[in-house]
Amino acid sequence: MIELVIGVDVGGTNTVFGFVDRDGNIYAKGSIPTQKHSDPHYFLAELHDAIQSAASTISVGYSLHGIGFGAPNGNYYNGNVEFAPNLPWKGNVNLVQIFKQYYDLPIFLTNDANAAAIGEMVYGGAKDMKHFIMITLGTGLGSGIVVDGKMVYGHDGNAGEIGHTTVYPDGRQCNCGRIGCLETYVSAPGVVRTASEVMARSNVPSVLREIPYKDLTSKKIHEAALTGDAVAMEVFELTGKVLGMKLADTVAYTRPEAFFLFGGLAQSGDLLLIPTKKYMEHYMLHVYKGKVKIRISDLDAGNAAILGASALVWDEMK
Amino acid sequence: MIELVIGVDVGGTNTVFGFVDRDGNIYAKGSIPTQKHSDPHYFLAELHDAIQSAASTISVGYSLHGIGFGAPNGNYYNGNVEFAPNLPWKGNVNLVQIFKQYYDLPIFLTNDANAAAIGEMVYGGAKDMKHFIMITLGTGLGSGIVVDGKMVYGHDGNAGEIGHTTVYPDGRQCNCGRIGCLETYVSAPGVVRTASEVMARSNVPSVLREIPYKDLTSKKIHEAALTGDAVAMEVFELTGKVLGMKLADTVAYTRPEAFFLFGGLAQSGDLLLIPTKKYMEHYMLHVYKGKVKIRISDLDAGNAAILGASALVWDEMK
Repeated sequence: MIELVIGVDVGGTNTVFGFVDRDGNIYAKGSIPTQKHSDPHYFLAELHDAIQSAASTISVGYSLHGIGFGAPNGNYYNGNVEFAPNLPWKGNVNLVQIFKQYYDLPIFLTNDANAAAIGEMVYGGAKDMKHFIMITLGTGLGSGIVVDGKMVYGHDGNAGEIGHTTVYPDGRQCNCGRIGCLETYVSAPGVVRTASEVMARSNVPSVLREIPYKDLTSKKIHEAALTGDAVAMEVFELTGKVLGMKLADTVAYTRPEAFFLFGGLAQSGDLLLIPTKKYMEHYMLHVYKGKVKIRISDLDAGNAAILGASALVWDEMK
Repeated sequence: MIELVIGVDVGGTNTVFGFVDRDGNIYAKGSIPTQKHSDPHYFLAELHDAIQSAASTISVGYSLHGIGFGAPNGNYYNGNVEFAPNLPWKGNVNLVQIFKQYYDLPIFLTNDANAAAIGEMVYGGAKDMKHFIMITLGTGLGSGIVVDGKMVYGHDGNAGEIGHTTVYPDGRQCNCGRIGCLETYVSAPGVVRTASEVMARSNVPSVLREIPYKDLTSKKIHEAALTGDAVAMEVFELTGKVLGMKLADTVAYTRPEAFFLFGGLAQSGDLLLIPTKKYMEHYMLHVYKGKVKIRISDLDAGNAAILGASALVWDEMK
């Protein structure tokens, strides 16, 4: 009899789920569209149906121990998804409470970056670490902080928003309403903004000059950098500088053993990692120098969201 | 039979100690000079003698449960004072190990800002809080971060150095070798630097213009502000702005319920508190707005160092 849990990742477009064992093996998977229902009750009813039909495909004997949700603006303390701008439901929605009608199992929920951190701790490179920080790089920059082997949720569940701390007080405008947030520099759109600035500042030729701003993507800039495009390479250097500066500051808060980078931009590997390490070391307080690791997440990118959500349950059971 | 512990605060000039009960009442106190011995063994022998003679003045029956040390660069994990620039001993000195020859009691050590945080948690305004941050304002800016009712020490004991995180990347030079550290703005010398800048920038008359830079102190600037001196008042506004900006960022890490300010500059009360609150609210991410308190420490300033060190023991016993 294999012990399994269900991990559910609620994304802006699709909601994916899987049945996962303690080692991160996935026994069944499925997905439903997130935007179809403006009433979360219908959304969860459809999710329940999809889970039941996936369950019927599992050919081994298993026991089910709980369900973990990763969702934007998910609050671990109360099970609410709180005013998530990219989801079709308004205000606070208590996914955990609603979903309990279908399952007599423990159900947990947290935000996607925290779920990724717990995934790294349960299945990935942070297995033996007590203090580490996960940085997720996508449309925004999310973070999950682990101290003494426990997720830091803070007084009301909203801790760990490093993407919305200031790098340059007179810097770029952020969607959150603040100025100079880390996320405006280190994220997929942040990299595009940096490319636009670099092109304005220099006269260096670049393939990026042939692409309108609205069509520029971090992927195109990555591809240009791989061909040696000087502007694109400068963009990664500057992105690593800003991230390295902020990680140097971040060490002074909770002194993690390591940072893990996850998500689209992290796939750029050394292009991002080398300048990030260099500038983190340069800007770090002397007592920390040479002691803090930066790693790309060990989690399989295709399944990481499901794994992170499922890890919530294993972490609770430990 | 009263239960007591000993709190010892190792300062740059004097080392003070006291016998303290669970409520923070002090039954005997004493002090020795810190700089007399370059060998820490002699220093601790003298400390032991002074403690014994203070003990003989206690007229009630008591049991002794442990000793707590607060010291600059004190490391909780290993009991070392690590390369403290203002103490007469070189390198790493294991105060806990050496002092164990005198007492068959648990002995704990941490840095002074962490001790202040634990003091606030055991005796002061943070008694019922699980998540808060202590900011100590003196020659430098120290900090102690509490998450889930526990001090955050991090991977190697050096967590909580918010004074050495960046406010302005092209800002002031810090003694630590970095540029733009919070401590270069928000500390006694930081306030003097700000006064000097404000006098340079404006033509507003001020009594501070009659004092040479080397004789300017935060106390004189405070006194001038109380008389309505426009330059001095601007200095507190700007100091509160920088502190408020940084506290706004800090909330995004561990989402504390409150910040506590302690030390000389915190005695300025509303002069510092009002602008700090205003700017923290202004710069904070929307989900945190209106929810985080800033308070002046409840601890009696004259005994706070002893209380903080003694609290370490009670905190371990809880």
